[in-house]
Amino acid sequence: MEEKNIELEDGAGGKKSSDFISEIRKNFKLKTKWKNLEDDSAVFDLGKEKLVFTTDAFIVDPIFFPGGDIGKIAMCGTINDLSVMGAKPIGIALSLVIEEGFPRKDLEKILKSIGKISKETKVPIVTGDTKVTEKGKIDKIEITTSGVGLVKGVIENSGAKIGDVVIVSGNLGDHAVALLSERFNYKTKIKSDCQPIIAELKEVGKYLTSAKDPTRGGLATILNEIADKSKVKIRLKEDELPFGKEAVALSELLGIDKFSFPSEGRFVATTSKKNAKKVLNILNKYNKAKMIGEVEKGKGVYLKTNLGGIKQIENPRGKLIPRIC
Amino acid sequence: MEEKNIELEDGAGGKKSSDFISEIRKNFKLKTKWKNLEDDSAVFDLGKEKLVFTTDAFIVDPIFFPGGDIGKIAMCGTINDLSVMGAKPIGIALSLVIEEGFPRKDLEKILKSIGKISKETKVPIVTGDTKVTEKGKIDKIEITTSGVGLVKGVIENSGAKIGDVVIVSGNLGDHAVALLSERFNYKTKIKSDCQPIIAELKEVGKYLTSAKDPTRGGLATILNEIADKSKVKIRLKEDELPFGKEAVALSELLGIDKFSFPSEGRFVATTSKKNAKKVLNILNKYNKAKMIGEVEKGKGVYLKTNLGGIKQIENPRGKLIPRIC
Repeated sequence: MEEKNIELEDGAGGKKSSDFISEIRKNFKLKTKWKNLEDDSAVFDLGKEKLVFTTDAFIVDPIFFPGGDIGKIAMCGTINDLSVMGAKPIGIALSLVIEEGFPRKDLEKILKSIGKISKETKVPIVTGDTKVTEKGKIDKIEITTSGVGLVKGVIENSGAKIGDVVIVSGNLGDHAVALLSERFNYKTKIKSDCQPIIAELKEVGKYLTSAKDPTRGGLATILNEIADKSKVKIRLKEDELPFGKEAVALSELLGIDKFSFPSEGRFVATTSKKNAKKVLNILNKYNKAKMIGEVEKGKGVYLKTNLGGIKQIENPRGKLIPRIC
Repeated sequence: MEEKNIELEDGAGGKKSSDFISEIRKNFKLKTKWKNLEDDSAVFDLGKEKLVFTTDAFIVDPIFFPGGDIGKIAMCGTINDLSVMGAKPIGIALSLVIEEGFPRKDLEKILKSIGKISKETKVPIVTGDTKVTEKGKIDKIEITTSGVGLVKGVIENSGAKIGDVVIVSGNLGDHAVALLSERFNYKTKIKSDCQPIIAELKEVGKYLTSAKDPTRGGLATILNEIADKSKVKIRLKEDELPFGKEAVALSELLGIDKFSFPSEGRFVATTSKKNAKKVLNILNKYNKAKMIGEVEKGKGVYLKTNLGGIKQIENPRGKLIPRIC
């Protein structure tokens, strides 16, 4: 660890974050039968099937935002982390840390929102913990959702093959637009894309060679992760970029790279050229899916601009955008 | 929900806490195959064995205390919640929320402490999430540990039988003494009892009809829970009470009921009279175990005083003691 104190950059996604996580994980070396320890979820072989296990902590500001709230994002985050592994989520553990004096009506809104996603996805809340802290110990509310799922064939980040194509399940960045607009008082009708991606992944999972949801760190972080782990190069084309109009506009206005904008209800995946059309057709029933690039021999993530230039999309370093997920 | 805002009492353990949890759970009605939804861990039948799943949130003040720290208590809390169900813990998910500016050396101490318990118990940290929040959004650090385990025969809180005896695995209240002493500047050499109880429960689990660790809400809360769920009465004798000398002294000094003192490395269980001696002999290899009472027909928890009087030990209401676990 470099600096004396923990900095925001250590948790912002991107290169500095992944270094920080590596530093943390150095303390936990233990021989284990678990696999995919650096994936969205860890995997334990039960014999006939595999157990998948993940956790996510959420302190979002504001806690209510266009298109969702901290409860919805916590549920979606964990359900989606299981889903991108190809797993069927079977249960959620809900940990709430609430500040003394937090309005009951706000808590009820959040709980109803959690209950709604649970009902829609048929993923039950099966266990939990609730702590109330003295004023000032926490800002309003913190939610940690952990989830378990079952899977036969795991989708791994390391599975992208040369010749594959890269697909996104919908336009990217709306979560960032919705939250940044609230913060910077920018007028927009865009709502967060926060939603479970369980149904579409259940349908197309078997065709995917890798999959990941572009949350913290955005497209730049996850494509670099897939490229690194799969030991391949990913090439994007500028006119195939998946960002919504408002995401592009806000990115330019605030001078924040749109490639680091988080989405909370999308996934990016690779699939063979042969299966690409089938996958896109299925995904288009849910959202406007798109083919955005190809997997080639080499390493790193590159963008071919409309003028013919080649620009590397690096794993972002340090502080990307205000923390919004 | 009664008051307009959430109060400390809602999270302090005891009657008001369990009402609050019931209010929360009302939002999550969903048909599910999971069992033991109101136990320390939820249970899912996998066929040959059962999956056990639990979560715990920790904001402890102070984060370092005699006998442990927030990392150790988080690990022990979750490992113990799986262990009292009779399960073998197989993996922990570690969620860290860290305040910007938190000293790296303190984080390293906490992580080393987590790693030590992981190594000792052979329970690996398999997945995690790390968030860094702006200053003031959280006080220092919050840790949520979630755990999964496997079990064949579940120990349920509802299993105490008339004629059983009640056993504690060691003296109670040392965690409370260690933390309250730090807070109130009271001089003592007592260290927190915070420790994993995985090994002893593995040995005696098969003989127990119910088991629970007396954390938040202390002995009063868990005995009332066992009595309620098992539909029995529990009778304790005053001269068999399991509290350490310092716990008794501090309880009197601060005017806080010792029956609500949390312990973080003990369990209370019921077993048949026939197996009691065997269980005590095994437990005494680890700690000074003790038989503290009997299970009878009826309901509630009662203490027979040395003077022959009968006093009901009620599930504590409202704020018990400063939050120390």
